[in-house]
Amino acid sequence: MAERILIFDTTLRDGEQSPGYSMNTKEKLEMAKQLARLGVDVLEAGFPIASEDDFEAVKAVAQQLKGGPIVAGLCRARDIDIDRAWEALKHAERPRIHTFIATSEIHIKYKLKSTQEEVLGATVAAVKRAKRYTEDVEFSAEDAHRTDQDFLCRVVEAAIKAGATTINIPDTVGYGLPWEFGQRIADLMARVPGIGRVVMSTHCHDDLGLGVANSLEAVRAGARQIECTINGIGERAGNASLEEVVMALRTRKDLMQFETGIRTEEIYRTSKLLQSITGVSVQPNKAIVGANAFAHEAGIHQHGVLQTPLTYEIMTPESVGVPRSKLVLGKHSGRHAFKKRLEELGVELTEEELNKAFVRFKALCDRKKEVFDEDLLTLVEEEALTTAETYTLEHLQFTSGTNIVPTATVRLRMQEEVAQESGWGDGPVDAAYKAIDLITKIPGKLLEYQLRAVTGGKDAMGEVTVTVEMDGQRVVGRGSSTDVIEASVRAYLHAINKVVARPRSGKTITEKV
Amino acid sequence: MAERILIFDTTLRDGEQSPGYSMNTKEKLEMAKQLARLGVDVLEAGFPIASEDDFEAVKAVAQQLKGGPIVAGLCRARDIDIDRAWEALKHAERPRIHTFIATSEIHIKYKLKSTQEEVLGATVAAVKRAKRYTEDVEFSAEDAHRTDQDFLCRVVEAAIKAGATTINIPDTVGYGLPWEFGQRIADLMARVPGIGRVVMSTHCHDDLGLGVANSLEAVRAGARQIECTINGIGERAGNASLEEVVMALRTRKDLMQFETGIRTEEIYRTSKLLQSITGVSVQPNKAIVGANAFAHEAGIHQHGVLQTPLTYEIMTPESVGVPRSKLVLGKHSGRHAFKKRLEELGVELTEEELNKAFVRFKALCDRKKEVFDEDLLTLVEEEALTTAETYTLEHLQFTSGTNIVPTATVRLRMQEEVAQESGWGDGPVDAAYKAIDLITKIPGKLLEYQLRAVTGGKDAMGEVTVTVEMDGQRVVGRGSSTDVIEASVRAYLHAINKVVARPRSGKTITEKV
Repeated sequence: MAERILIFDTTLRDGEQSPGYSMNTKEKLEMAKQLARLGVDVLEAGFPIASEDDFEAVKAVAQQLKGGPIVAGLCRARDIDIDRAWEALKHAERPRIHTFIATSEIHIKYKLKSTQEEVLGATVAAVKRAKRYTEDVEFSAEDAHRTDQDFLCRVVEAAIKAGATTINIPDTVGYGLPWEFGQRIADLMARVPGIGRVVMSTHCHDDLGLGVANSLEAVRAGARQIECTINGIGERAGNASLEEVVMALRTRKDLMQFETGIRTEEIYRTSKLLQSITGVSVQPNKAIVGANAFAHEAGIHQHGVLQTPLTYEIMTPESVGVPRSKLVLGKHSGRHAFKKRLEELGVELTEEELNKAFVRFKALCDRKKEVFDEDLLTLVEEEALTTAETYTLEHLQFTSGTNIVPTATVRLRMQEEVAQESGWGDGPVDAAYKAIDLITKIPGKLLEYQLRAVTGGKDAMGEVTVTVEMDGQRVVGRGSSTDVIEASVRAYLHAINKVVARPRSGKTITEKV
Repeated sequence: MAERILIFDTTLRDGEQSPGYSMNTKEKLEMAKQLARLGVDVLEAGFPIASEDDFEAVKAVAQQLKGGPIVAGLCRARDIDIDRAWEALKHAERPRIHTFIATSEIHIKYKLKSTQEEVLGATVAAVKRAKRYTEDVEFSAEDAHRTDQDFLCRVVEAAIKAGATTINIPDTVGYGLPWEFGQRIADLMARVPGIGRVVMSTHCHDDLGLGVANSLEAVRAGARQIECTINGIGERAGNASLEEVVMALRTRKDLMQFETGIRTEEIYRTSKLLQSITGVSVQPNKAIVGANAFAHEAGIHQHGVLQTPLTYEIMTPESVGVPRSKLVLGKHSGRHAFKKRLEELGVELTEEELNKAFVRFKALCDRKKEVFDEDLLTLVEEEALTTAETYTLEHLQFTSGTNIVPTATVRLRMQEEVAQESGWGDGPVDAAYKAIDLITKIPGKLLEYQLRAVTGGKDAMGEVTVTVEMDGQRVVGRGSSTDVIEASVRAYLHAINKVVARPRSGKTITEKV
């Protein structure tokens, strides 16, 4: 039987801490459930001491994810970090404490202002403390790939002796070349006493586009856990992409006799959910999950593909769960059909969420003749991820054009109260946002604005994602409508409602592996 | 001295033939000039027999690119293909004919419905015919990586004997693992007589995320030319990314003693130009050129980076030309300052283009307080790439909202004539497009719609890119404005004007390497 490679997903930790990908607890839970369906072995839910939000998210995932993957939390090699991580993790069925310290000369000298001997001591102390809480302890040597190999061997040996059950060798800055990184792993496997008793792990960044290749070379050299993220998100150029690592292992089983526990048919949906939650799309040429990954220019003209897909396809779209766009529902579809289709798409909603979604579905049908699966998913995801709404949109109107001053009037409801204001701006979005600011009195600074058409056609739904700085926080809001201005207003209100629901400061600790 | 690796850019051929990345001749010329500034050694301009458009584009690049890279054109191993390629290439200072035929069993059997002996014969005939036109002939064995190695050796040997000066080994379907692909190149280098007299080349696709790694392994094994594209675009998951290959070689010179002729400081600008022309952005975590590639969460909080950038940065943003966003111009800036700043940004405009751009700049200043470099580039790129305008926007007005039927009125000028129509739709964009369709009588089908904010802030300019199917053609249009609806209208008109200027059918031949 093929040997098992453990997939350690760090989408919610390394991925989430990169600019533009932050998620709230509800969003993290939604992702965590999908990652469990995908079949990851270990799920790193966050960095508990980094912020209150991170702590709450790790705790929620630990409490609510039952019968699924091991739940890991990151912590520096310090007592308070480790204690805090355990505080969040202790509710998990299978908790893992993941502690780390930098081992490269440059990090020890400039970041830690410490010495090799102190790092060695901190490693042993951290693993031992973690071990008091749980059997499952992972140790990472931050910036391992730029660490002196003799010292790295000493640190790894000490961590194993102290009780670490997984040893992770990160290429924190994405500096390694495949054969070089593989050689480093092979050398550790050969030289460190006791290394055969623990799981060797890698964590490769993609700064030179080599994250996946370095991970595979590490596996060849003896690593049995790969740390990776959905869509390859993460600090800077991101981490090795989970879908690429997994599909490379599956497609090239002839040369790499390994297997993973990933249900590859869930890959596409997982990728889409992450894009939807963060509002950040992958580029069309993203391997495995990009819009063009299985596309061939001019479709039917490509006679090679028609005759036998194997001429240009080394894996099938079905194997990673890429759906065919189907016409499903229209204005004559009832509540039953709507609910049934959602179930087929794997969406679970509470009765109340379903009712609200159905109202918006009927409103959409009035505007759009053909409602596709993608439209439905956009609509219900927005519903599912909505926080308690303080402000709801009662009415919007605007007028603009060339030589017309863009003007908008907005009416918002806050429980019993209703307020209405108008504003002008350099475009209808700007005008509407100014009117909203007059009502909420929380001036927001728009940092990013993105719009995507959910399906093709002039009557397509537009989904707007905004990143806004408000009240010292950076929040992401999303809204959809066939009217792009209305979608923009809904996105801005979504962001405002998040801020009102959770007035708390952002992260302060941002170290990483 | 370090040995030179030749960079063969196929952005305008393999990149351009993937869905959503098509460019017209003017756009290809703009890209070609920037690729020459970047310092690529070989520039593949297109596939002349694929369509009239492709032929014209290759011819234009061959004629107009002086003192720069070798200009290559792709052709199958058939007389008419080769003759046609030469027809387009003959004006170039340094032309290269790049001919190919599939060599894998699956391609020979199912696509070519041929035999190995016929393929061998076609190879020799094609190289000899190309050789009658030019000394510089490249031969590619399509799907080489899935080809029986003994047969591949025979094909390569025959191509060299027939006069090929460059032998390219493509991993057409992105199937290879790094060590496996490197071994294949090493084996060819060891076994094929005469291989030392020619340049060994690679062309790796990224279907498993290994395009860059495979290219580097090939170089280790003896390859001295890498075929790649800007932003890694190309069929399906795209090609090895030029910027990643080049920066890996530069950053890891300690392990790979090679150099390229690339002026790395031009990388970022080249990447941005391609994104601007095609309207397709790279994801934030794209290595080297993505928005996050050099970003560290929480900026100043990251004390490691502050103290010494080397703790997390293995290359500097400056080395790839990432600019700092600067406030440059405002409503009090005159024509001289505008022109000067454009010159500093490396933009060349004719006097007429400059005049038109300045008018739009002043209009922008009325709406937007701070005009950034990115705004300027968006504005002038739109100007530079505009085709002869048949329809120009004279007036636009629209009104919409919740419970309001979205309504728009558009007035267009066509030389002396002026026409005005109104329309309603499911949103203001839809309404305006319907009004335009009534005037132009060319109903367009909107396939894709994208909007991006050029800079941050509520008063940011929006740049809309639409892909429209009109009159049997698929065209891309772009428009920008602080009003997203106006930008949408400008983008749609841009597409219409392209169709009117060039009523010709699309591609019919779409084979590839």
